[in-house]
Amino acid sequence: MSLDAVLSRIDSDLPAATERLMELLRIPSISTDPAYTADCDHAADWLVADLTGLGIATEKRVTPGHPMVVGHLDGPGPHLLFYGHYDVQPVDPLELWDNDPFDPRIEQTPKGKVIRGRGSSDDKGQLMTFIEACRAWKAVHGSLPCKLTFFLEGEEESGSPSLVPFMEENAEELKSDLALICDTGLFESKTPAIVTMLRGLLGEELTIKGPDIDLHSGMYGGVAINPIRVLSRIIASLHDAQGRITVPGFYDGVPELPDEIEAQWQGLAFDHGTFLGDVGLSKPAGEQDRTPLEMIWSRPTCEVNGIWGGYTGDGFKTVLPSEAHAKISFRLVGTQDPLKIREAFRTMVREMLPEDCDVSFRDHGAGAASMTETSDPSFEAARQALTEEWQIPAAYVGCGGSIPIAGHFQTILGTTPMLIGFGKDDDALHSPNEKYDVESFHKGIRSWARILAALT
Amino acid sequence: MSLDAVLSRIDSDLPAATERLMELLRIPSISTDPAYTADCDHAADWLVADLTGLGIATEKRVTPGHPMVVGHLDGPGPHLLFYGHYDVQPVDPLELWDNDPFDPRIEQTPKGKVIRGRGSSDDKGQLMTFIEACRAWKAVHGSLPCKLTFFLEGEEESGSPSLVPFMEENAEELKSDLALICDTGLFESKTPAIVTMLRGLLGEELTIKGPDIDLHSGMYGGVAINPIRVLSRIIASLHDAQGRITVPGFYDGVPELPDEIEAQWQGLAFDHGTFLGDVGLSKPAGEQDRTPLEMIWSRPTCEVNGIWGGYTGDGFKTVLPSEAHAKISFRLVGTQDPLKIREAFRTMVREMLPEDCDVSFRDHGAGAASMTETSDPSFEAARQALTEEWQIPAAYVGCGGSIPIAGHFQTILGTTPMLIGFGKDDDALHSPNEKYDVESFHKGIRSWARILAALT
Repeated sequence: MSLDAVLSRIDSDLPAATERLMELLRIPSISTDPAYTADCDHAADWLVADLTGLGIATEKRVTPGHPMVVGHLDGPGPHLLFYGHYDVQPVDPLELWDNDPFDPRIEQTPKGKVIRGRGSSDDKGQLMTFIEACRAWKAVHGSLPCKLTFFLEGEEESGSPSLVPFMEENAEELKSDLALICDTGLFESKTPAIVTMLRGLLGEELTIKGPDIDLHSGMYGGVAINPIRVLSRIIASLHDAQGRITVPGFYDGVPELPDEIEAQWQGLAFDHGTFLGDVGLSKPAGEQDRTPLEMIWSRPTCEVNGIWGGYTGDGFKTVLPSEAHAKISFRLVGTQDPLKIREAFRTMVREMLPEDCDVSFRDHGAGAASMTETSDPSFEAARQALTEEWQIPAAYVGCGGSIPIAGHFQTILGTTPMLIGFGKDDDALHSPNEKYDVESFHKGIRSWARILAALT
Repeated sequence: MSLDAVLSRIDSDLPAATERLMELLRIPSISTDPAYTADCDHAADWLVADLTGLGIATEKRVTPGHPMVVGHLDGPGPHLLFYGHYDVQPVDPLELWDNDPFDPRIEQTPKGKVIRGRGSSDDKGQLMTFIEACRAWKAVHGSLPCKLTFFLEGEEESGSPSLVPFMEENAEELKSDLALICDTGLFESKTPAIVTMLRGLLGEELTIKGPDIDLHSGMYGGVAINPIRVLSRIIASLHDAQGRITVPGFYDGVPELPDEIEAQWQGLAFDHGTFLGDVGLSKPAGEQDRTPLEMIWSRPTCEVNGIWGGYTGDGFKTVLPSEAHAKISFRLVGTQDPLKIREAFRTMVREMLPEDCDVSFRDHGAGAASMTETSDPSFEAARQALTEEWQIPAAYVGCGGSIPIAGHFQTILGTTPMLIGFGKDDDALHSPNEKYDVESFHKGIRSWARILAALT
């Protein structure tokens, strides 16, 4: 059978496929930092060349930010679009990496072989699973089994500012029967999963300004307002004692979980002891009356992602700083309105400001939550394909992360998104020592080959 | 009269004196940062050479940290010791400086000529006022009017770790009739002042650790403890709504102001509107039932001097960090015990920690407050000398800063300290664009010449 030949080809080509991924991982395409603009461009070029080599007509498309990579291949059967992103997160704190984040290596660990390096899991390793599946298919059959569009982004880790305008301008070109998105994980690191619920994301940066200049805390301490103390008080007041978020109107549009989903989730063997224990924790923080799985998949959050102000170097400096800063993000669910929440948050902060303090805000993106209908028969076909590969029944799951593109496919293109990925909970996404299991990479490629067969 | 000749010499030598100070300011002797160790050494060498050139037998004396500069000159009359420090504060944020902090320049400003550069006021400019007074005296008279000891430190801005052991080991050598300390300012930038009350200082750095690694806030946000939020809550709870510090037992040993000092301070034309207005503020923060002058001179404080954690670079990173850090200092008064307060603070923080969080502390020095008796007739003599030079009656004042050396002279050597300095409120100590008025420098030198005449 034709699928078996493709799977064999994938197995025998794995060393070469791994070497191709390592090449892509060596490009430090950090999208949020302007110092890496040329590297983002280089990563886009690399993908254009690779897809072109597969016979896919691919172009680097200019945006006001980093370029999009768009490729088309005509073919029989349904029209599938594949989305992934070639940009990666920053690497600091660099001193916590065991090796250069952009000098990836294969490591043998107690849990198996891993590919270690920034972007190995998020998202270069994942996007290459699909490309490698296509490569094997083409090698065996000389062509691919369906009409294909590749749509690869370079700004996913920096709020995707160019994405919506680009999708709107090129809607006709990008419309397809189904959008495959590979940027999620296995459930509990072992069960194949299709994500049907995604949280939205609102990112805010605030700067509290007190005195005009940094002051000597001996001369002014006590009598002059200290913006770090003001900022700390604001952050401390964003949650109440029960772990609920205090921004007025925040919970408008937060649905209770439908009974059937609750039942399905209770059937999943989620062990929060292991989930937290893997990262050195023992007790769920957050809302006291919610289960950990609810908190991660279906409840909104407010987290501080960064804070800084005053003297942060070695030693001590008795400075009373002029400014203090924080980066704060909200994960959103249901029909929570990101723009309304932004306004409510900003108003709340302004109302908490004491005299002699100013606040300024910087917008780091806003996207609502999304939920996918799974009634299309392709979902069941993909679920069976995943089950066959992993020999564990694939699950429909929620995801705590935010992948705004999923909602955009629905709203801008009218295309149903299908989110399938092979990351594991201990991949250290966005952290030092990010890795992707060779198992994820290998079985991920095989999964896509099976899904291509099942959908065409 | 001999003093007049010295004062004339000071006037005519001012350009050369300024050039000598600029030379010293060019040495980036930042004591808290190990990268500048050789520069601290260089500054010590410079002073040894300069004092040796004045005929003072001077040595660079080794300590476990930066060296001390100690010089002796035999002579008639009383034995005076002069203390200053040759080390300076770090210069960040560097981008807020108008020029290279270690490329000092003379600038004409609306308020007069200033010497701009790191250390110009704190403390290189100040310590050179005394050395230049000695130089002029020697040029005119061929000798100095008293027995003199110079004691110049290089660790004042980094907690003076070597100071007490050095003073204890060399107590006999350093004992004198009076210790002159030049590291304070004019009162309200215009009235000459002798500081008789100094606050103590306790410096603490704390690190809150939550998860073992930085986490993805989408995957773990809400359910995993966030150390930035924990730290913010701790900082927010260090003061109550009235601005009082909540560390248990903190106010033990905080005296109410004696009536005579309160009366004296009320006689001072302190304008808190101007004091705050100069730095862009309008309203005294801090304890609601205290006057601003009390808050600065005679009340204890707790300030956050630095905070950091998570992603602090450009753009946004949805990280839930493993650690958050703060540098916190307490200014102490009366008989507050720094070591007891350190323990009470650490216990309070530990008790506030939620499950799954650890805290570690780093000690950045602890010194009690000090108060000087002014009954010695040399105080009245110095006060009259200052009054003659500035043509405004000199005042006995408090000082919000902490100069632990003053207490050490009393307790270790039994020597009375006399704190006289010529800094102004807008000198931007510890801040970008630090400056020292040419008036402070010039009249400071003249003041010391008058004081030398008055005390001998």
